[in-house]
Formats: sequence, structure tokens, C-alpha cells
Amino acid sequence: MGTDAGDDGHQLHGLGAAGDAAEVNLSARRPFVEAVWSDLAETFFPDDPFRGFGALPPAARAWGALKYFVPSLEWAPRYGLDKFKYDLLAGVTIASLAIPQGISYARLANLPPIVGLYSTFVPPLLYAVFGSSNNLAVGTVAAASLLLASIVETEVTADEDPQLYLRLFYTAAFFTGLFQTALGVFRLGLIVDFLSRSTITGFMGGTAAIIILQQLKGLLGMKHFTTKTDVVSVLLSTFRYRHEWKWQSAVLGICFILFLLSSKHLRKKLPKLFWVSAIAPFMVVVIGGVFAFLVKGDEHGIPIVGDLKKGLNPLSISQLTFESRHMKTAVKAGLLSGILALAEGIAVGRSLAMVKNEQIDGNKEMIAFGIMNIAGSFTSCYLTTGPFSKSAVNFHAGCKTPMSNVVMSVCIMLVLLFLAPLFKYTPLVALSAIIVVAMIGLIKVKEFCHLYKVDKFDFCICMVAFIGVVFFTMVIGLSASVGLSVIRALLYVSRPTTCKLGSIAGSETFRDVKQYPHAKSIPGVLALQLGSPIYFVNAGYLRERILRWVEDEENVCKSVGHDLQYVVLDLGGVTSIDNSGVGMLREVYRSLDRREIRIALTNPRLEVTEKLMLSGYIRDVLGEEWVFLTVKDAITACRYALQVSRSKGEDQV
Amino acid sequence: MGTDAGDDGHQLHGLGAAGDAAEVNLSARRPFVEAVWSDLAETFFPDDPFRGFGALPPAARAWGALKYFVPSLEWAPRYGLDKFKYDLLAGVTIASLAIPQGISYARLANLPPIVGLYSTFVPPLLYAVFGSSNNLAVGTVAAASLLLASIVETEVTADEDPQLYLRLFYTAAFFTGLFQTALGVFRLGLIVDFLSRSTITGFMGGTAAIIILQQLKGLLGMKHFTTKTDVVSVLLSTFRYRHEWKWQSAVLGICFILFLLSSKHLRKKLPKLFWVSAIAPFMVVVIGGVFAFLVKGDEHGIPIVGDLKKGLNPLSISQLTFESRHMKTAVKAGLLSGILALAEGIAVGRSLAMVKNEQIDGNKEMIAFGIMNIAGSFTSCYLTTGPFSKSAVNFHAGCKTPMSNVVMSVCIMLVLLFLAPLFKYTPLVALSAIIVVAMIGLIKVKEFCHLYKVDKFDFCICMVAFIGVVFFTMVIGLSASVGLSVIRALLYVSRPTTCKLGSIAGSETFRDVKQYPHAKSIPGVLALQLGSPIYFVNAGYLRERILRWVEDEENVCKSVGHDLQYVVLDLGGVTSIDNSGVGMLREVYRSLDRREIRIALTNPRLEVTEKLMLSGYIRDVLGEEWVFLTVKDAITACRYALQVSRSKGEDQV
Repeated sequence: MGTDAGDDGHQLHGLGAAGDAAEVNLSARRPFVEAVWSDLAETFFPDDPFRGFGALPPAARAWGALKYFVPSLEWAPRYGLDKFKYDLLAGVTIASLAIPQGISYARLANLPPIVGLYSTFVPPLLYAVFGSSNNLAVGTVAAASLLLASIVETEVTADEDPQLYLRLFYTAAFFTGLFQTALGVFRLGLIVDFLSRSTITGFMGGTAAIIILQQLKGLLGMKHFTTKTDVVSVLLSTFRYRHEWKWQSAVLGICFILFLLSSKHLRKKLPKLFWVSAIAPFMVVVIGGVFAFLVKGDEHGIPIVGDLKKGLNPLSISQLTFESRHMKTAVKAGLLSGILALAEGIAVGRSLAMVKNEQIDGNKEMIAFGIMNIAGSFTSCYLTTGPFSKSAVNFHAGCKTPMSNVVMSVCIMLVLLFLAPLFKYTPLVALSAIIVVAMIGLIKVKEFCHLYKVDKFDFCICMVAFIGVVFFTMVIGLSASVGLSVIRALLYVSRPTTCKLGSIAGSETFRDVKQYPHAKSIPGVLALQLGSPIYFVNAGYLRERILRWVEDEENVCKSVGHDLQYVVLDLGGVTSIDNSGVGMLREVYRSLDRREIRIALTNPRLEVTEKLMLSGYIRDVLGEEWVFLTVKDAITACRYALQVSRSKGEDQV
Repeated sequence: MGTDAGDDGHQLHGLGAAGDAAEVNLSARRPFVEAVWSDLAETFFPDDPFRGFGALPPAARAWGALKYFVPSLEWAPRYGLDKFKYDLLAGVTIASLAIPQGISYARLANLPPIVGLYSTFVPPLLYAVFGSSNNLAVGTVAAASLLLASIVETEVTADEDPQLYLRLFYTAAFFTGLFQTALGVFRLGLIVDFLSRSTITGFMGGTAAIIILQQLKGLLGMKHFTTKTDVVSVLLSTFRYRHEWKWQSAVLGICFILFLLSSKHLRKKLPKLFWVSAIAPFMVVVIGGVFAFLVKGDEHGIPIVGDLKKGLNPLSISQLTFESRHMKTAVKAGLLSGILALAEGIAVGRSLAMVKNEQIDGNKEMIAFGIMNIAGSFTSCYLTTGPFSKSAVNFHAGCKTPMSNVVMSVCIMLVLLFLAPLFKYTPLVALSAIIVVAMIGLIKVKEFCHLYKVDKFDFCICMVAFIGVVFFTMVIGLSASVGLSVIRALLYVSRPTTCKLGSIAGSETFRDVKQYPHAKSIPGVLALQLGSPIYFVNAGYLRERILRWVEDEENVCKSVGHDLQYVVLDLGGVTSIDNSGVGMLREVYRSLDRREIRIALTNPRLEVTEKLMLSGYIRDVLGEEWVFLTVKDAITACRYALQVSRSKGEDQV
């Protein structure tokens, strides 16, 4: 019977719709070089940066390529006063935010506060030259600062050997820069894609929570504190040294927090007054400093920042340490914080660009971040990226180009040259208040609820990151969450959904019978839609699953009193197949052939058709006449063949 | 314009085909528990072993479950003489093969030869009770024996401390058993799926090549040899000890090899005489033994096996070593060889079952392998599985049930009790000849060529395994190849193919314009088919790619003089989407909305529809009227809206 129908197949092919045009193009095959090239291009150059270069003369092409790598060459020639007035305003605004943030985050990392200011001077200049985002404001970030500190402190604490501690930070920034540049050059931006939205939401929330808790030290004016980051250690440490609590600090802290929160609230109510909330941290620093100076705060329970040296960044290139015993820590700190910084910087750049309908090139951004971190590590800066808070302020202040970073950088330069000593009186509690208010917004409870509603597994991934960070360490939280994401990704592809298709009444469309309960199945024919991709991880599963569908359908058919004779496999959604996948199709064919069931394929896509033709599956095993363009065509052909075979059977009887 | 068309959308929905039935079923939503349960079931119980139990009374259900876990209860009650005569013949045949193979592979692992015979006595009995394959013959295997030896020898060599060496083998077998049982119980058979066909082909080929080279020791009658497995070490070692070469051994070896090869050739020519090739190794052992006895071989350059003790397997449970310093090696050896043994055993069982149209349950098989290895480790056996050569002989000899394993086991028992000392005179060169001939067939040059033709990447994966095994170590070859496979798997899913659809003349079908160059695109509408699955790893890529398609299409449209106004995203092939994927669709929507381009979705599948509804994408962002059942419906609606908006525009002019 099987071969019988096979012969008939030839005659009926093309019955379905309309002649030759509606057949599967089996001869479409890309030459080897073209196929490899197009695969490589899709993998590493999905954005095809040099498209449209073909028509240009060589000089213009070189200039275009240079402009591609140095985006400032694109905007600088057309830059004028009209744009500068906006960038000037934005630059001054972010500079007022950069000073308190720079000092706070440096203290968060247990670094000398001046390093925070150094880090806001050199990197923004380099980003302005190499960066492609018009909205990003460069600076240090809280989460990466704490992550760096928690890794470096496994090697040496800031109290034990402050010099070595600092050198490890510079070295880590150097490796971060190398790593980011390499990722960009080799177009491996997809590594950053492995930090899913859920992981980042959970990780950021958890980090914000522990950073807020750590501010208890500053808010209570304490001197001793744990270097660990988990909630248990932090709370224990807070109460162990409760004799150090200073009520003066606490009162001042609460006032500052209330002031900052109300300025944030104002911004929500009256978006036009965004600049109030933007300069509020700077005002807190100034007011706090004046207050501490007047009441001699450090003698009355309000610890202050202490001496800040005048002068620009000293060179730190000779301080990088490549001794093997420190290398491992520096490399680990550099890579982990580098990935985190990239994820934050690129996400921020992209989401702001989207509002203005601009494009951000992830790989180009990585190179820019990399260059600024390498240069930073030579000039006493630690890790920098594009923090969300500062970039959002930059955006709202109306920045037009990366020139706003240059303005900020010049402001910081003036501060370093002339005003740094004035910040000596900044109360630590003011810095803690600024950090607390900045971090509160990062715990996105609404987003957690949304995740819980939409996707329980994503919610788990997010919670693993959150709980891991809060109760264990940042590295554990991050890696457990990424690990879970990858396991889910592999489960996704190891169990591609297969479904049975039925015809939807009144149309020639075939759809999942589970999704459309009214869809009717076709007597004697089983139509299955296969999930994608088909390859070694899921070939075994798919074989079992297809055979089980067939067995179930055979039982149904027998109960109605006829045989299952055709199985139609819809490959329309299958984007790729490998050698194990083709082997699986062969095995299914052999298995069904023995039960006298014929297989028809419908709508294989380009790559799949190529593989099936090359491996001889279509020509030698299935027969070209059993490949159809649509499910409808296949089923029409099967029905026709069924009628022919039945009438033959009746003739013989 | 965007919202304008949106209002029109409402009226025209359903224009496409035929009324309500042809709309996307947006309300189809599985309750949470059902969705999770069905996902878990698909992941871990794709074969649904207990289906059809629902209707049975509890006692029958319990009996059914017992029969599921102990398949011998299924066949034993219906077992009779009619089947036993076949199993008896098959059992005796494989026993004749088991004796030389058991001794040879034990020597390959540098174990006392008698351990090879022990290992062919206990495990087959247990497999007969718990195994589900009717064709598998249990025994030791060459590749896993060598792999075990190469790992255990990193801890201790057989010469240094033969007792400890042996104990580590038993311990490794114990861990193999535990691991295999756990995999089966937790239904994690998918781990074995990570050994792709290409990896196994390359690994087996490479292993066969180095095993053949190692036989130079036996063939040349040498005493000293390297314990390393790579080709360079083996060849250097062969020539370093060339003063040990014995011409007598070499001559005898060549005779044996020629005899075995011709018996194999005979089987190919006359398949009915398969038993000649099946008992040929046994004949080589017997003839060789008699010859060595007659000429006093060990005194004339023909080394012999040496004393073999009479008696059944001694208990070895007290010899298992769980000391921490050896544990790591034993666990590593156990896990790696366990995965390899499972892959071989299950693949052999499946491919033989397929010929007889029987079903093999991978998870059940794992439990059976696990039980037999745990029991084996208690009774002086090392790792066993279902080797290909022996199982094929079993199959061709006409076995009907696992009873043939019992027969083989009884034969080996008789040998152990009475005949073992007779095998003392077996010349080592005879064993080497048997191994060489068994291994030659495993280097599948044809398969390599086939891979090269069909899939270059699969060919690379295969070659990495082959070259890794031949030039480095077996573990390096295996893990490099698996690593490459996983990277490819992740690349597959990180770059799902997107293609532009065009309408195929004369039908209502829309297909890839690259594959079907005659397919016509629709002016003002861009239809894209998205690959599957959409999730965090590829969300960023897909966003970039969709926006690039849109940009390209906009340029084409502009050159013709009209605007791109609609983008139709065909989700028919997308089996799953996660939170990042939904976020990506939102961003694409926002991006296109700003350019006044409307998005329409077609044919989202069940899981995808659920997620899109839950996240509010369809209701709040897109609008339910922009989800269509087929690409044709969507395009009909878009065209209609285009006409309406154009005529409106003309009216206003």
C-alpha cells in the first residue's frame, strides 16, 4: 500500500493549488561560500554596519569606516552654538549630580573619595569621542562599585593595605577595558544578551536593597562595619557596634532623605521642574558641608569626608599590578563587573535612544566603554559606564550630543583644580542619604508582580538573583540566575512544541487543535506541526513524540474503523536542522514505513531544504513528490490517494 | 495615520476568510496548574508511560506499574519452548563471542583477564530482569574500558598498585550505576541527548584508531608500553622498545587478522553464514590456545594470558573505596564512562528495536543499566553496557527475549566453574587480533564524507572529537566536541532566522522571497516570518534585525514613491516567548509607531498567545483587531486600510 500511494503521489502533485509556481523550490541552494558567509554575517554582523558602502569610491569608504569607528567625526563637523547651548545646560546639570555621586560610590567601594571625582573626569572625555549614544552620561555606578569591592576584598581589604586595594581596582578596570574592547572588536555582544531582563531586574533590586542596608553605617555615623554584603552580616554588624550610633547623624540623615524624596516627588508631579531633583543631591552636599563646617560636625557626631587633595588625576599606569597572586582576583573582578557595566550601559543607551528614535550599536558601544576604561585605569580612575540616573537627567536636561559629557568633564576639572578642598566638610550622612534615595527606585516591586503574572519561570529567575544577592553574595546571585536562564534556554530547545493540526471550518487554514477546539482533523491523515530548531538535543525527543502522536491517532482511527495512512509533517516553523535531526526524520520514516504509513513534508524553509536535499532524505528516502508547499496541498494529495487506493481495493474485491 | 488605520482595523477584521471561526482564539488559555503540568510532562515524560492506566482498577494499575519497572514480568509469563529454542541458539553464540571479548577488553583496561569474564556473568542476569530491549546483549565495551583506564591511571597505574587500580574500577562502576539509575529515575535522559550523532561518530572513530594502534603491543609481543593513549606516545613507545619485538607473534597475529577479516567478508557476501563470523573470535582463541600449548608459545616469543582462577565472581563490595583522595577520580571515571556507556547502549538498543518495530524506553533502560552496574560493582565486575558488536550478533542469531542474556550468563558460569584454566594458553596476540578486527568497522570513513557533504559544522564537531581523541586524550576529545555542539546549539537559538515573505503567484500562500524568487512583495506592507523561540538570548538580535528589515523596506518603498505603512509579523513558527521577548515586541512596536508604521501579528501559537495576552501586549499595546489567523487575512486587512486612508487623503486634497 505504501508504495502504491507513492506512485499515485506523482500524478497528484500540484493538484492542491495552481500549477508549477506553487511547488516547493527544491533546487534553491546557496553556494557553500555564500551560505557560510551569510551565516557568519547574521551571527556577528546582524546590523550590517557597512551596508551601502558598495557604491562609494575607496576614499569615501575609508572615511565612512573611520566615521563608523569614531562617531564624533559624524556629529562634530556639523556642531554649532544652537546645539551647544543645550549641551552646556545638560552638562552643568549632570556635573552637579556627578560630584556627590562620584564621592558616594567611591566610598561605597571603600576607595578614597577623590578617586570618584577622578573617574568622572577622564572617561567622559573619551566616551564623547568614541561613543555612539547622544544621551549617555558617563560615571561610576553603585552596583558595579559594590561588586568590585566584594570581589577585591576576598584578596585584601581597604584597611589592611589601602595601596594594594586601590591598585587592584585600577588593574580590574584595565581588564574590564580590555575585555569590553575585545567583545566589541570580535562582535561578541551576544554574551551580554545572556543577562536577561529578569536577571537584571532581580539583581539590581537585590543590590539596591543591600546597598540601602549598608548605608546604615553612614546614617548612624558608625566607624566599624562588616565588609560582607549579605543582609544577615550587615544587620548583625549594625547591632554589634550599636554603641557607635550617633543620633546627630541619624537626624540629619532623615532630613536629607525627606528633602531628596520630596524633590523626586516634585519631578513626578511637575516634570518641567526636573532640574530641582537633578541638583538636589548637590544642594544636600553643599548645605550639609556648610552645616558641618559651622557646627564643627566631626566633633559632634557628624563624621565628614576629610581631606581632598587639589589637582588633576595622577598617572596610575605604573600602579597596575600583574603579579600572578593578584591576577586572578583582578581578572575576575574585571570580567564580572565589566559584563555588568556593559549590560547597564547598553540597556540605558538603548532605552533612551528609543525615545528619540535613534539607533545604538551595541558592539560600537562596547569598544567605546572599553577604550574609556583602559584609559581610565592609566589615570587613577576605576570602572565607569553609563549609569541610569545620570543619563536620565542628561536626557531630560535636553542634551543633544555627547558634548554634554565634555561639559561635565570640564566642570569636574575645575572642581579638581580649585574647589576640591571645599568638599572636605561634606558629611558622610549626606552621601548615605543620596545613595539611599537613588537606590530606592531600583527595587521595582511592580516589575516583580508583572513577572509573576506573566511568566512564573521568569519570576523564579528574577527572585533567584534577588535572594542570592541579598542573602549570599552578589556573584552567587548573578551566576545562579544566569545559570537558571541558560538551563531554561536549553530546556526550551530540547522540548520544541509539536502539535496536531486540524482544518478550521470555512477556511483552508490548518491550526493547532488544542488552541482551536473547533478545528477538524482529517480522517486517515495526521497533520503535525514541528517546533524549531530540530537538532541533536531534541532529535530523540521529537522521534518519541511523533511516534506517540501516530500511535494515539492510530487508536482513534481504529475505533472509527479505518487505518491511519498518511502523516503530514509541517516544517514551516523549523528554521534549522542538523545531522542528528535528519537522522531522526530517517528513523521516523523507516518506523512508519513498516506500519505502511506514508510521510509528507510541507513547506521546508531554505536551510532545511538544503540539508534535506544534500543528505538525500528527500530524493532517496521520501521522494520529491511527497514535499508540498502548504498543508492544504499535502492533505488534498493524501485524500486523493486514499480515494484511489480505496476504489482499487473495492475493484479487487 | 497610525491610529486612523487602527480604527479601520476593527471593521475589516474577518474580511479575510469566513467569519468568526477564522479568527485567532485569544481566549484559549490553560489554567496555571494545567500549563505547568503539561510543560513538566512534556519535559520529563514525553513518552507518557502510564497512559491508558486511568480506566483500570487500583490492583491492575499497581501490577501495570510493576510491569513497567520490571519488564520481564511482561514477557516471562508468556514465555515458552517455542521462543526458548531461538534464545538458546542466540545465547550460545554470543557466549562464544563474550569469552574472547571479555578477556580482550579487560586487558585493554589493564585489568586481570578474569575480571572480563566476571563482568559477563552477573550484569546480563540483571539486565534480563530489568531491561526492556529484546535484542541487547550485555557485556564490556572497548571505548569505555580504555576511557576508564585512561582516567584511573592518572591516579594510580596497574603496575604500581594493581589492587588499588582494581578497586578504583569497582568504585567507578558503582558510581556509574548510581548515576545511571538517578538519570533514569529523575527522567533526565535528555543529558544523553547532548552527545550528538556527530560527536559519537568522531569519538568512536578516534577511539577505534588509538585502540588499534595500542594493539601493536600485543601483535608485536612486547612487554613494555606507554599508558598514554595518544598516537604520538603510542608510536614512540612502540619504537623505543623495538628490541622486544617478536616475529613469531607478528606472524601469528597477521594470520589471525586475515582469518577474522575473511570471516567478516563471508558474512557480507552470505548473510546466512553470520554464525561463522560470530564464532570466529572464539575459534581464534581455541586454535591459538592449542597452538601455544603445543609449541610452548610463552617460551618461543608468543606471550600467553597466564593463570586464570576457577570459580565464580568473588564479592567485591568491601573493596569499594570512598576515601576522599580517590573519590574524585572514581566519580569522574564513573560519570564520564557512564554517559558514554549509556549513549552506546541506548543507541544500539534503539536501532535494533527499530528494525523489529519495537519501542525502547530510554529512561527505563537507564535504570536497568544502573541496577546492573551497581550489582556488578558488588560482584567483581567493571562497567558493562550493550556493546554494538555483541548485540548485532544476538539479533542476527534470532534472539526473541532478554532470555538470550541468561543463556550467555549460564555458559559463562560454566566456563568460570570448570573451563577457565584452559584459557590460560590463549596467546595475547589472538586477543589483539580480535580487537583490531572489531575496531576497524568503527572508523566510519563513509559517515565522515557524508557529514562533510551535508553539514560542515557537524563535520567539524566530528573531527574535533576524532582529532582530540587521537592526538590528545579521550576526555579532551569528548568534551571539546560536546562543547562545540553546545556552542552551536546556543548560536542556533541566539540567531533565529527571520525572512521576508512574498505572495506566491496563483495561490494565497506567503513564502520566503529568498527561497522563492518569484514570490511578490506587497506594496506598502512588509511581511516577516520570525524564527523560534523568542527569548532573552535573541531578543536583542531580533529587535535589531526587524528594524533593519523595516529600514531596508522603507528605502525600497521610497524609491518607488510611497510609504511603508504596515509590518506583518508571522508568529506561526514561534513555539515560545519569554518576558524579554515580549519586551522586544513592545520596543519594536514603539519604534515603528513613531515612524507611523502599524504592526499586525498573525497566527500566534497557544503558549505565545497566553503570554502576549497576560502581559497586556495584545490588549493594551497592539489592539486585538491587529491579530490575524493567517498572513493572507492580515495583508487583506492592511491593503483595505491602505485604500481607505489613501482615498481619505485624496478627499482631503
